[in-house]
Amino acid sequence: MVELIIKKRNGLELSKEEYASIIDGFISGDIPDYQISAFLMAVYFKGLTSAETANLTDVMMRSGELIDLSEIKGIKVDKHSTGGVGDKTTLVLAPLVAAAGVPVAKMSGRGLGHTGGTLDKLESIKGLSVDMSRQEFIDKIKSHNIAICGQNANLVPADKKLYALRDVTGTVDNMSLISSSIMSKKLACGADAIVIDIKVGHGAFMKTLKEAEELAQTMIGIGSKMNRKVIAVITSMSEPLGYAVGNALEVQEAIDTLKGNGPEDLTELCLELGSHMLVLGQVAKSYDEGVDILKGLIKSGKAFDKFVEFVEAQGGDIKMVNQTELLPNAKFSYAYKSKEAGYINDLNALDIGLASVKLGAGRETKESALDYGAGIILKKKIGDYVNKEEVLAMLYSNNDITFARATEFMDLAYQMSQEKPLEKPLILKTVM
Amino acid sequence: MVELIIKKRNGLELSKEEYASIIDGFISGDIPDYQISAFLMAVYFKGLTSAETANLTDVMMRSGELIDLSEIKGIKVDKHSTGGVGDKTTLVLAPLVAAAGVPVAKMSGRGLGHTGGTLDKLESIKGLSVDMSRQEFIDKIKSHNIAICGQNANLVPADKKLYALRDVTGTVDNMSLISSSIMSKKLACGADAIVIDIKVGHGAFMKTLKEAEELAQTMIGIGSKMNRKVIAVITSMSEPLGYAVGNALEVQEAIDTLKGNGPEDLTELCLELGSHMLVLGQVAKSYDEGVDILKGLIKSGKAFDKFVEFVEAQGGDIKMVNQTELLPNAKFSYAYKSKEAGYINDLNALDIGLASVKLGAGRETKESALDYGAGIILKKKIGDYVNKEEVLAMLYSNNDITFARATEFMDLAYQMSQEKPLEKPLILKTVM
Repeated sequence: MVELIIKKRNGLELSKEEYASIIDGFISGDIPDYQISAFLMAVYFKGLTSAETANLTDVMMRSGELIDLSEIKGIKVDKHSTGGVGDKTTLVLAPLVAAAGVPVAKMSGRGLGHTGGTLDKLESIKGLSVDMSRQEFIDKIKSHNIAICGQNANLVPADKKLYALRDVTGTVDNMSLISSSIMSKKLACGADAIVIDIKVGHGAFMKTLKEAEELAQTMIGIGSKMNRKVIAVITSMSEPLGYAVGNALEVQEAIDTLKGNGPEDLTELCLELGSHMLVLGQVAKSYDEGVDILKGLIKSGKAFDKFVEFVEAQGGDIKMVNQTELLPNAKFSYAYKSKEAGYINDLNALDIGLASVKLGAGRETKESALDYGAGIILKKKIGDYVNKEEVLAMLYSNNDITFARATEFMDLAYQMSQEKPLEKPLILKTVM
Repeated sequence: MVELIIKKRNGLELSKEEYASIIDGFISGDIPDYQISAFLMAVYFKGLTSAETANLTDVMMRSGELIDLSEIKGIKVDKHSTGGVGDKTTLVLAPLVAAAGVPVAKMSGRGLGHTGGTLDKLESIKGLSVDMSRQEFIDKIKSHNIAICGQNANLVPADKKLYALRDVTGTVDNMSLISSSIMSKKLACGADAIVIDIKVGHGAFMKTLKEAEELAQTMIGIGSKMNRKVIAVITSMSEPLGYAVGNALEVQEAIDTLKGNGPEDLTELCLELGSHMLVLGQVAKSYDEGVDILKGLIKSGKAFDKFVEFVEAQGGDIKMVNQTELLPNAKFSYAYKSKEAGYINDLNALDIGLASVKLGAGRETKESALDYGAGIILKKKIGDYVNKEEVLAMLYSNNDITFARATEFMDLAYQMSQEKPLEKPLILKTVM
């Protein structure tokens, strides 16, 4: 192993067999963590070639279970988001795209920090279960064209172990390592094609457009070497997506969006990502045709119907979906008001996420219980004018002593100015 | 710790307190090896400033016992060599410099690989012991101006642990880490001033003059920040020093040198290093005066007398020193002959070292027993002309089946040419 460390340290390319021996040795414990972490730091400085990145991805992918979706007809298109505050895109996109005829076989993780993940949001619907056998998962997709389940512990174990080590050794920030982590999981889940939503800005992993473009190219490079089509959409994350942040609150907003009454930014993003998925799934011939199909499914009610069908198939209480006032709610609310008049110049998504965690909507530790009804409904976003004492956001929690802590983060989140800020586009760039 | 790793990874300077927390945490086990190795790899790429190098040295030095030599009058000048095959300099220099009036308080390690270390060579003299209490060590120096003892396990434990980790994580080759490792040990041993012999060439740690100069400057920088005078002498290690390689064989050659009958290169090096030690110890006013003093001590017999005094003080059998034919010898000898006529163009010190290990003169593992009589006497060195079948070297061992393995390395060591090679100087540069 020390020879492989020195080889990478000196900027040389390692072979697929060498990556296989590193990952195998790491998982078996034959190679100690201190050698892997030194190797990772050498990778941080010397980078990986595109061949190395693809080989590492392939080796990682094969470290655990490989989901075989070949029983399911059609091109399985997965979507991945690098994550962001208020991102309920999956809740909208999965039924929307399934309704269009693209099979949706979605495996999701749970959220830690910011707000809950997709699974947490779904579980705010009473009875809905994301635990199922592989065969149940496949059968549900065959019957309903959609299923969403939790990730098995045996899915890419190399990534879990490697990420844990990267996290404590200052070796997270490397495009090849980030890309191989994401792509190995998507590919192990059986995706034939992948649409990646790369967020840029506050509260997002990528801070600049340049970094996001580099990440996009790296993932497309892995796809091309592994014979999988990948489209990357780079989107702005300068403020939270939509108005709702919190589990049941986001389910409500997703339903609104599926019915055609959702926030403009969330709707735009879902049409953008969804249309690319339809093109990759060969259900639409062009991006424009894809958008038209999706708009039609929303208008006709078929998108929402598919959501109801999905919830029922996974054991969820469809009354909650049809009458959203039955979704978990919060005993207490707090109107967070502006301290001054002016335009909202900045709305830091990370601070909003942290405020929602304080309210109980996200986990502070792995063991934290979620308050499904807790969260934030933003009333004003970037570019809006507010008067002094006007409500900026409504905070919800089942524990009213959380408001004091949450408002500290709200104070940090909102920045005012006397001039109206320039409007920024949501979709920054599509890379394919 | 992850913040400190990222700080160094991003090329920032760490404070002395930060180095103290890293080294303390490493020794206590609070900081796991995988974080230290990632940090070391970041150091490999980003380097340390001279302030950081001195701070790391200081913190390492304080990780264990600090030898207090203040009871001993005079300026304690230590010598360090980066090591090399056939380097018996300490055996000559210590009594030579002690005879001139500079107190010699020498702590040495044992050798692993190549040939034995200074302690192993001394122990080939029957009865001589290098194990003694701190007070015995100091008392011997007060009485005889010289003592040589083994390094305590508690001397700079941070270095032992750190070096073991560097060795298996590809992070050995960094001037700051190499320098802090050497200097922390010398300073913990109580040296007021230090002469460093940096070997360059085959079988030496530094492969180029440029690297050696960089190492010299780094060590002088540490000294200047820690208020200790350091002189570095860069010497060629293109072939073994002197003619003898092996424990008792090297003692014999050291005695010859102390009596004025030693090999030219060994004598030159001892006068060079010794004179700098006399200047640093304020026994000589100039380098030239130092050389004159040392030559006088050799000529008058006082240098050899000091050696005998030293051997007796440490329990050694002085009969062996006065009649060197009583030193351990080997039952078997083998005349290694030239396969062709020509000039010796290259004599690889590393291969000679490995040949001597095969003969029993060095340790292959920590547990190996040494054959004190085993080793090699070179008969021809670089620039010498030899006829076919002329003896190049005599091999000695108490186990004659070792000759076959040893000659394989001898074949690799000697390179012949038909043209006489250019003469290369031994002393390449003095940096102070």
